[in-house]
Amino acid sequence: MSLIRGRFEKEADEKVLQYTESISFDWRLSHQDIAGSIAHTKMLAKQGIITAAEGKAIVKGLNEIRQEIEQGKFKYRTELEDIHMNIESRLAEKIGEAGGKLHTGRSRNDQVATDLRLFTKEMITGAVGKIRALQAALLKLAEANKDVVVPGYTHLQPAQPVLFAHHLLAYFEMLQRDTGRFSDCLKRADVLPLGSGALAGVTYNIDREFVARELGFNQVSNNSMDAVADRDFIIEFDAAAAIGMMHLSRLAEEFVIWSSPQFGFIEIDEAYTTGSSIMPQKKNPDVAELARGKTGRVYGNLMALLTTMKALPLAYDRDMQEDKENFFDTIDTYFTTLDVFTGMVKTLKINALAAREALEQGYLLATDIADYLVRKGMAFRKAHQTVGKLVSYAAAENKPFNELKLKEYRSFSELFEKDVFDITIESSVAARNVTGGTAHKQVRQALKAAKKLLGGVIDR
Amino acid sequence: MSLIRGRFEKEADEKVLQYTESISFDWRLSHQDIAGSIAHTKMLAKQGIITAAEGKAIVKGLNEIRQEIEQGKFKYRTELEDIHMNIESRLAEKIGEAGGKLHTGRSRNDQVATDLRLFTKEMITGAVGKIRALQAALLKLAEANKDVVVPGYTHLQPAQPVLFAHHLLAYFEMLQRDTGRFSDCLKRADVLPLGSGALAGVTYNIDREFVARELGFNQVSNNSMDAVADRDFIIEFDAAAAIGMMHLSRLAEEFVIWSSPQFGFIEIDEAYTTGSSIMPQKKNPDVAELARGKTGRVYGNLMALLTTMKALPLAYDRDMQEDKENFFDTIDTYFTTLDVFTGMVKTLKINALAAREALEQGYLLATDIADYLVRKGMAFRKAHQTVGKLVSYAAAENKPFNELKLKEYRSFSELFEKDVFDITIESSVAARNVTGGTAHKQVRQALKAAKKLLGGVIDR
Amino acid sequence: MSLIRGRFEKEADEKVLQYTESISFDWRLSHQDIAGSIAHTKMLAKQGIITAAEGKAIVKGLNEIRQEIEQGKFKYRTELEDIHMNIESRLAEKIGEAGGKLHTGRSRNDQVATDLRLFTKEMITGAVGKIRALQAALLKLAEANKDVVVPGYTHLQPAQPVLFAHHLLAYFEMLQRDTGRFSDCLKRADVLPLGSGALAGVTYNIDREFVARELGFNQVSNNSMDAVADRDFIIEFDAAAAIGMMHLSRLAEEFVIWSSPQFGFIEIDEAYTTGSSIMPQKKNPDVAELARGKTGRVYGNLMALLTTMKALPLAYDRDMQEDKENFFDTIDTYFTTLDVFTGMVKTLKINALAAREALEQGYLLATDIADYLVRKGMAFRKAHQTVGKLVSYAAAENKPFNELKLKEYRSFSELFEKDVFDITIESSVAARNVTGGTAHKQVRQALKAAKKLLGGVIDR
Amino acid sequence: MSLIRGRFEKEADEKVLQYTESISFDWRLSHQDIAGSIAHTKMLAKQGIITAAEGKAIVKGLNEIRQEIEQGKFKYRTELEDIHMNIESRLAEKIGEAGGKLHTGRSRNDQVATDLRLFTKEMITGAVGKIRALQAALLKLAEANKDVVVPGYTHLQPAQPVLFAHHLLAYFEMLQRDTGRFSDCLKRADVLPLGSGALAGVTYNIDREFVARELGFNQVSNNSMDAVADRDFIIEFDAAAAIGMMHLSRLAEEFVIWSSPQFGFIEIDEAYTTGSSIMPQKKNPDVAELARGKTGRVYGNLMALLTTMKALPLAYDRDMQEDKENFFDTIDTYFTTLDVFTGMVKTLKINALAAREALEQGYLLATDIADYLVRKGMAFRKAHQTVGKLVSYAAAENKPFNELKLKEYRSFSELFEKDVFDITIESSVAARNVTGGTAHKQVRQALKAAKKLLGGVIDR
Repeated sequence: MSLIRGRFEKEADEKVLQYTESISFDWRLSHQDIAGSIAHTKMLAKQGIITAAEGKAIVKGLNEIRQEIEQGKFKYRTELEDIHMNIESRLAEKIGEAGGKLHTGRSRNDQVATDLRLFTKEMITGAVGKIRALQAALLKLAEANKDVVVPGYTHLQPAQPVLFAHHLLAYFEMLQRDTGRFSDCLKRADVLPLGSGALAGVTYNIDREFVARELGFNQVSNNSMDAVADRDFIIEFDAAAAIGMMHLSRLAEEFVIWSSPQFGFIEIDEAYTTGSSIMPQKKNPDVAELARGKTGRVYGNLMALLTTMKALPLAYDRDMQEDKENFFDTIDTYFTTLDVFTGMVKTLKINALAAREALEQGYLLATDIADYLVRKGMAFRKAHQTVGKLVSYAAAENKPFNELKLKEYRSFSELFEKDVFDITIESSVAARNVTGGTAHKQVRQALKAAKKLLGGVIDR
Repeated sequence: MSLIRGRFEKEADEKVLQYTESISFDWRLSHQDIAGSIAHTKMLAKQGIITAAEGKAIVKGLNEIRQEIEQGKFKYRTELEDIHMNIESRLAEKIGEAGGKLHTGRSRNDQVATDLRLFTKEMITGAVGKIRALQAALLKLAEANKDVVVPGYTHLQPAQPVLFAHHLLAYFEMLQRDTGRFSDCLKRADVLPLGSGALAGVTYNIDREFVARELGFNQVSNNSMDAVADRDFIIEFDAAAAIGMMHLSRLAEEFVIWSSPQFGFIEIDEAYTTGSSIMPQKKNPDVAELARGKTGRVYGNLMALLTTMKALPLAYDRDMQEDKENFFDTIDTYFTTLDVFTGMVKTLKINALAAREALEQGYLLATDIADYLVRKGMAFRKAHQTVGKLVSYAAAENKPFNELKLKEYRSFSELFEKDVFDITIESSVAARNVTGGTAHKQVRQALKAAKKLLGGVIDR
Repeated sequence: MSLIRGRFEKEADEKVLQYTESISFDWRLSHQDIAGSIAHTKMLAKQGIITAAEGKAIVKGLNEIRQEIEQGKFKYRTELEDIHMNIESRLAEKIGEAGGKLHTGRSRNDQVATDLRLFTKEMITGAVGKIRALQAALLKLAEANKDVVVPGYTHLQPAQPVLFAHHLLAYFEMLQRDTGRFSDCLKRADVLPLGSGALAGVTYNIDREFVARELGFNQVSNNSMDAVADRDFIIEFDAAAAIGMMHLSRLAEEFVIWSSPQFGFIEIDEAYTTGSSIMPQKKNPDVAELARGKTGRVYGNLMALLTTMKALPLAYDRDMQEDKENFFDTIDTYFTTLDVFTGMVKTLKINALAAREALEQGYLLATDIADYLVRKGMAFRKAHQTVGKLVSYAAAENKPFNELKLKEYRSFSELFEKDVFDITIESSVAARNVTGGTAHKQVRQALKAAKKLLGGVIDR
Repeated sequence: MSLIRGRFEKEADEKVLQYTESISFDWRLSHQDIAGSIAHTKMLAKQGIITAAEGKAIVKGLNEIRQEIEQGKFKYRTELEDIHMNIESRLAEKIGEAGGKLHTGRSRNDQVATDLRLFTKEMITGAVGKIRALQAALLKLAEANKDVVVPGYTHLQPAQPVLFAHHLLAYFEMLQRDTGRFSDCLKRADVLPLGSGALAGVTYNIDREFVARELGFNQVSNNSMDAVADRDFIIEFDAAAAIGMMHLSRLAEEFVIWSSPQFGFIEIDEAYTTGSSIMPQKKNPDVAELARGKTGRVYGNLMALLTTMKALPLAYDRDMQEDKENFFDTIDTYFTTLDVFTGMVKTLKINALAAREALEQGYLLATDIADYLVRKGMAFRKAHQTVGKLVSYAAAENKPFNELKLKEYRSFSELFEKDVFDITIESSVAARNVTGGTAHKQVRQALKAAKKLLGGVIDR
């Protein structure tokens, strides 16, 4: 008979047990559960709610169970439903009746919330660490290629020349914002719910601040009903991960496009590509594609929990057990994606030649030529139209800008003079010398700032 | 060295292998994969593309592998990535070089699409069967309580009396539509992609119609690029399951509300409830709550695959490997939810007394009284207003309708006569004697039609 | 005082009125509402529930209101909340007390469900028509370019040569499935809810079958509670539209990639591109990009309604008013996207030369060479590996296949003979002569079948 | 001819114009657009990029346009596509060629990002203000009823008695976290993108810090490509609003349940309920239901933008125009929902009598009785089982706890003594005297802290 079915005459149906059990996934909270129980026990003993001897026996038992788990000797039993009951039941086997005192002054509702918050805090640290590693890899790749110019695109149409390093640093910025979101989430996760009981608080003279200190929480929760009903911190983590995966999906898309032979700007290391079962020539960017595809999964997990939490009356409802599996899946997906991206970026090769060829086709200097006219006194809108016609003419003649004659230029505006030929890919890059611009000077400063950031503390 | 990395110098990185492997979940397609391979092999031999002896050896080998799998003796190896390579590699161990001929005239792209379609077809049958079982349970419960009247609610406010059986049959209808959606999905799933090769068709003289017949497919695909790029059938299944779970979430909500002591209309069998770790009096409707919560998960899986498939260029992209895990999760979640609901409905008890008490409070007969005035000649809108005032008066006096005096009625309208007291809960139910209405006569017919339906064929 | 607040002492707060009103969007149902009311009125008169004279007056009044709406003279009033009350109130102005009899034997719950189903049926027809138009445009483009060969891609890596027409026909197939889903949705939308009353049926001797015939419904609903609580048909439409937009997003992605100068396979007509406010050379595929972007919106609308319907107790809850705006938005988005795609496809130009150049780079014939070895007796897996090595060699030598010497071929396998040079892009296409394959013969048949289909009835 | 189609021969198709225009919704950014343009103009003049006279003329013209907009005299023209072109075009009408200089040194890409960030910053302030108002209303309601005890529920089953004020303060906490998320989002929104040009920075000697100061931005963006490609701040707002709506949907659910006559704990003011078109007795909690339903819409909008942004290559793609409509819809939905909730809470009445009756049924004191046994020395698990049996017995006897005899208690445990009768609803509440617990003392402190918070600054 289950420990908590005192009132019941029947056992749960086998199918029901399979449906309601959580031990098949919440075993991942075993360390947090034990840590929480130990802190709770110490507090109970300190407050005289249990005796010092009982306290010692419980802590000793829990430490042994932790070892059993670490050594893979612990037997998880489905009929005990969840990690809490598995551990408590094993404790009872070990130390007898005193084990039954562990649950004094707490409920599974505040216990599982505590476990989840401890776990979330660790995962936030984990996420930030993995993002940092990818930032470092991007930074290194940027520095190693800091003079390579590539076509910058908008609408996947060539727009203006940019430094490859500048392009990579755009992702550095996105990742930096990602760390900010996780750090902010930490503020709301870092609150101890233990002591909230089932929903209303407990009737024992407990010391919540002591438990908070033991477990490293920054504060205790203000309202017991909210404390057991709140899963905002998981949704917020899920949302931060969804945005993070969105960023990676954009980089993935660029890797897929750039490594297509028609672009050919990069070569992804063989270790990050796979072959075809039928086409011997293939070297497919599968890792980037899978990462892009897994974005859907992380979005789906966010939607799942938002949907689950919709319209639940206070305080705790069993629907909330659905908070875990999707959360674990988001963590696993996001973390491994960050890892493989870090590896892929570290080994990526840029094909500067292909980029240069692409730069020389097309009319990426058109904006610079319009700006040239503006500097000679033309209003921007007019300059824009003038160069628009010039481009049409050049395209019809099938000539790049640098093969046009001055006479041809001047047929569009008398303002054109010989110095129009000073406009080159290099001059174009150099001219964008504003904060955040692609000029070498700016990018060097940005690289320096990025490097400094990575040497520093976690939050920006 | 992987069978398909002929061109490569390096092995994939270990993390990459973990990231890209699918054997940890696509083992669920092993039977479909073997069935597909056997049909393909028979066709290759029939067409003389391989020899009869080779064909026999391959089929024998595959049958042995099937047995190994059934007996739990088959070793799945992560480094072989997926179920296809695991089986093919084992085949090579068993029968040597002839094994290498199995993959003649096909690609993993059309192979996995075939496996998935075989699997989906089975799951559609499975879904319909499980829905049928729940329909049967609802029907039985309705028949067993066919005279019980309960308050019908709109906006969770008492509206009009209805037969409990009528209320249950509303769910029967929803489930019936669910079977329709799955059956419709079958039409689009029941198409053989094998023979489409990697994307363009194959160069061998294959016989696709033969393979379709062997595997029980209704037709062969019309376009090879579409055939390997299409996952509509999974999304469509996911959408049907999402709607199905939405229906179950509504029933779950009603079970939760009805079993709350303030309503107390039903008693959920103990086997489908659980206790509290701290509150000994609790008998919580956890199964219904979990089902309601799992709705989020099934919605999330639908969103995940839609997102994954967004904007993928033809033909196959590795993103599409993400089609499986969420699909399997939807199946497992939906199927077990249907199962536990069937069990819960079978053992549900209705508390007719509590329902009757609720009926007698409130003013559920107000519509009938307005209709009464209409029949005496008042326009409906006016009758509605008149009864509105009557209700306000009665509520202020704290009297139910049947305690009002005729004089009091007549102070609102001269049309009221003694026969207003003939309006009762029973007369109210009986009066709604239109197709689909709650009158006993109608509900009896509906029960009969439902019974007939369940005895008949799968689709409506 | 609102017509339906008979019991109330206070009017609704102004903010509440703004929050709860639906006339700002449900005016779109005005024609359906009037059609439904006319059919209902005719039935009431036929059954003697109202007099013939009353019936005539109501129908005449409704027809006049319809005209006022068509002529833009009808004044929608927010304080009347919804389209039903706006029309009924105007009717009362026109014909006096008889107007109050229109609502006899029905409720807003079954009325709005009827309006929505009439509307959905029209929208299904509309969707199928617009899909047909895009199919026709694709077909015409395919026929006009039926000998153009392009690289077929998997993983955005060149895979095998395919006919451009074959590639386009893959989208024809997707669109064909889309029409199937809409047609299937029609089956479940084509059910008359009127007569279900608020939730329990009505107390009048109505003739539901008559109303169904008048309005062109295929059947009447079986259960009154389900009839007012059901919005499956909208979710199902939303899901079909979401899959439809997913298909269009794939085509959009290909248009974006193909029109990028690095690919340059197509030229999108100027009418379907836009310029840049700053870069005069730009010709951006904005229409394709917007279509791709709007996919998110249609997915979001599906998610929204699924979420809204989750866990709603029977029968009607006001949450369900949220069924309309997102539905209208999905219709507008999907329909205009189909329209602009049809126009874009009609005016699209293929750049066969650029495609040919791309075909000649790369090793798209590798599969054909492996198949060649298989035909000479090598097992497929071995052939695959052999050609893998051949590709590595050729790539290192920077030679396409057709510049390799026979001696070089034979250093990889003695099976290579002079006829290996017969393998060309043309032979590769021709060789895939299986149902659904890219061989000219197959594609011609597919074009013919597609043409026939478009000439025929709506459903496949 | 559009200002930006210099290179084009054809105008865009009419349907395309309708498809791509944004003026029908981005007119909402007019004030931000003008503010941004004025700051940009001042900077251009300060830097000598335009003359002081040109600068003055532009600023004067823009101020006049702002007035025209405020006075409703401005004509938005669809053929000018967006708000930027509408304003610039009007400026040209007003001041002639100098107007063409406004766009010097900027692009629509950085311009629209600037407008959106200015707008988002305002909306964050708006959201926090509206949340504060609802918090204040909850606080007032809590204070006005600070001695009312209600049953606290878990699983919608009575669990333990709690103060109604305690229950309301749980929502105060949720709302407090909501303000925290919006404030955190502000950090990432408060960054000036202007000066990033189309994607690479600009070629003029601009002063970005000056513009930032003029517009009140905290910093300038670090990377021009990221600056035009980033919409994180909108997604983050959407996610915060989704969580916020989830909280409101929970409160809505409770209002719906509590105002159902079977519960009857609250009475929603008539101004926040509506009647039925057919059932005169109805007083439906439509506002709460609509709020619950609109949760789906806000979730859908989040999903929509996440999907839209998935896998977009840098820097700007037209897909991103889809960032606005859903964002505006989320703002409108969330803000009006907060408003109507504030009004509804302000006018809510609690029915203390009904709550008391509910408290006296059921066995809400079971936990207290188990804790009693623990205090007498029994281990918690054993006490829980003992009381479980006691509850079964009492339920079978149909007696509440306070009608059981001591003898009956003692048949379950010898530890029961006369003082077991001291356990009452009041003692139960009082006993939960821990931080965050429901004891009067704790709740009074919580009310005090909440009041202090509302008097203080915006962020916690």
